[in-house]
Amino acid sequence: MELLETIKESGGWLNRYRHASSSCQCAMTFSVYLPPQAQTAKVPAVYWLSGLTCTDDNFRVKAGAQRYAAELGLALVIPDTSPRGAEVPDVPERYDLGQGAGFYVNATQAPWSRHYRMYDYVTRELPALVEAELPLLPGLRAISGHSMGGHGALVCALREPGLYRSVSAFAPICQPTGCSWGQGCFSAYLGADPTAWRAYDASCLIEAGATPPPLLIDQGTADEFLVEQLHPEALAAACAARHLPLNLRLREGYDHSYHFIASFIGEHLAHHAACLRES
Amino acid sequence: MELLETIKESGGWLNRYRHASSSCQCAMTFSVYLPPQAQTAKVPAVYWLSGLTCTDDNFRVKAGAQRYAAELGLALVIPDTSPRGAEVPDVPERYDLGQGAGFYVNATQAPWSRHYRMYDYVTRELPALVEAELPLLPGLRAISGHSMGGHGALVCALREPGLYRSVSAFAPICQPTGCSWGQGCFSAYLGADPTAWRAYDASCLIEAGATPPPLLIDQGTADEFLVEQLHPEALAAACAARHLPLNLRLREGYDHSYHFIASFIGEHLAHHAACLRES
Repeated sequence: MELLETIKESGGWLNRYRHASSSCQCAMTFSVYLPPQAQTAKVPAVYWLSGLTCTDDNFRVKAGAQRYAAELGLALVIPDTSPRGAEVPDVPERYDLGQGAGFYVNATQAPWSRHYRMYDYVTRELPALVEAELPLLPGLRAISGHSMGGHGALVCALREPGLYRSVSAFAPICQPTGCSWGQGCFSAYLGADPTAWRAYDASCLIEAGATPPPLLIDQGTADEFLVEQLHPEALAAACAARHLPLNLRLREGYDHSYHFIASFIGEHLAHHAACLRES
Repeated sequence: MELLETIKESGGWLNRYRHASSSCQCAMTFSVYLPPQAQTAKVPAVYWLSGLTCTDDNFRVKAGAQRYAAELGLALVIPDTSPRGAEVPDVPERYDLGQGAGFYVNATQAPWSRHYRMYDYVTRELPALVEAELPLLPGLRAISGHSMGGHGALVCALREPGLYRSVSAFAPICQPTGCSWGQGCFSAYLGADPTAWRAYDASCLIEAGATPPPLLIDQGTADEFLVEQLHPEALAAACAARHLPLNLRLREGYDHSYHFIASFIGEHLAHHAACLRES
């Protein structure tokens, strides 16, 4: 992997890399924040999955996570939200399909299936790469994300027992099979049959018996996408039916923006640090 | 003034306003963060002056200051960096002159002198407006800024004894009369005679006898503009000649970006909070 940029922040280093991805069959860019502790020892990593339209840049610039990661001794691994490039299929007039909207699935349908394999990329290829190349403790991982990335974090943690010690999400798309964002992408990437979509729907996965590692969700009550797209009530119902604990915090007055994430990212990273320390 | 937007962050409210500015003879936009404490009592305010090319948006999105302001009970007042609008003179091909590059002076030269009166705007009009309209403690102010805005903060504090209880700066332009950024703007806004420039040069003001309130400066050693534009050594020499204390911290490896600001903004706000509490 090629180091594109390195910037000192809060005593550690915020790096950006590019590499040839075998999962996505294109060059992929990602960022890693290495806390000061990584200069002398390997550290655990929190993977951050971003939302629709984002690249690796939004979180590293807007969330204010690096200072907490520096305090807690956590690396942050921040992938892009889709494959990219002139050769990668896209729908330029839509922000919610194609580049910037990979939805963290392995696509099965043409023309998407060649490049849109973000699930494999995030759960397999990227961890193997960064754990081989950077001072990260192998296997000591947590995962978090926002909106489409909150969906991605929940699905990765539910489908891969043991891969992550903890999971959290900000305003996640809790039931993509039941909202237009999810239906639009899933019908394109996974085909017209909704039964195939259930493997990438957190509420369906819990209904079907999957159990998450320690889970924390924050959701703003003034979130402009709450009613139409996010459906936390579906996730809550799925957990309740299985008597699973769910720490879903409704945050009065907060919207869907990075100002909401910045308000609580410290608590999320503390959640992950506690779980990563225990293990 | 008109409220354009309000977003909840860290328990307080990040607001954006527009008003007709008498100083700048145009509509001006600014942001204010009101911490949770402002819901029940008036609070002190830290004014933040941004650098070249910025609007009020950069600091509120990238610095991560709001969480510290919430902890410390400080409001943040974040003006634009110049007058704006189709009727305001500009040099679109230059990022370092005209709109986005007001340099916090009162221009005296055509065509700039009608609108480019950022010094009056920042030190007079804006404080009067926000202290009349918002829950701010009258007269309890501090000032800080970055690069061109660090210059602005130093100059405002040096020229206006009693107006600010404390001052700080990130990578300030310490001697604008001795660097191309400052010379370019000052010759346009203030005229060809360099003696007129000294009234807006922090190092010259200190040489001439001005004394700052408690002052904190952070400067990254890997700052790409350090050698050619910033000249902290001139400020240090001016302070040394007058036996003035100067807390100038050279930060190993940090650059000129908001990642540098985000790393230390908490310490700057703590400096201001301590001075504002004492008074």
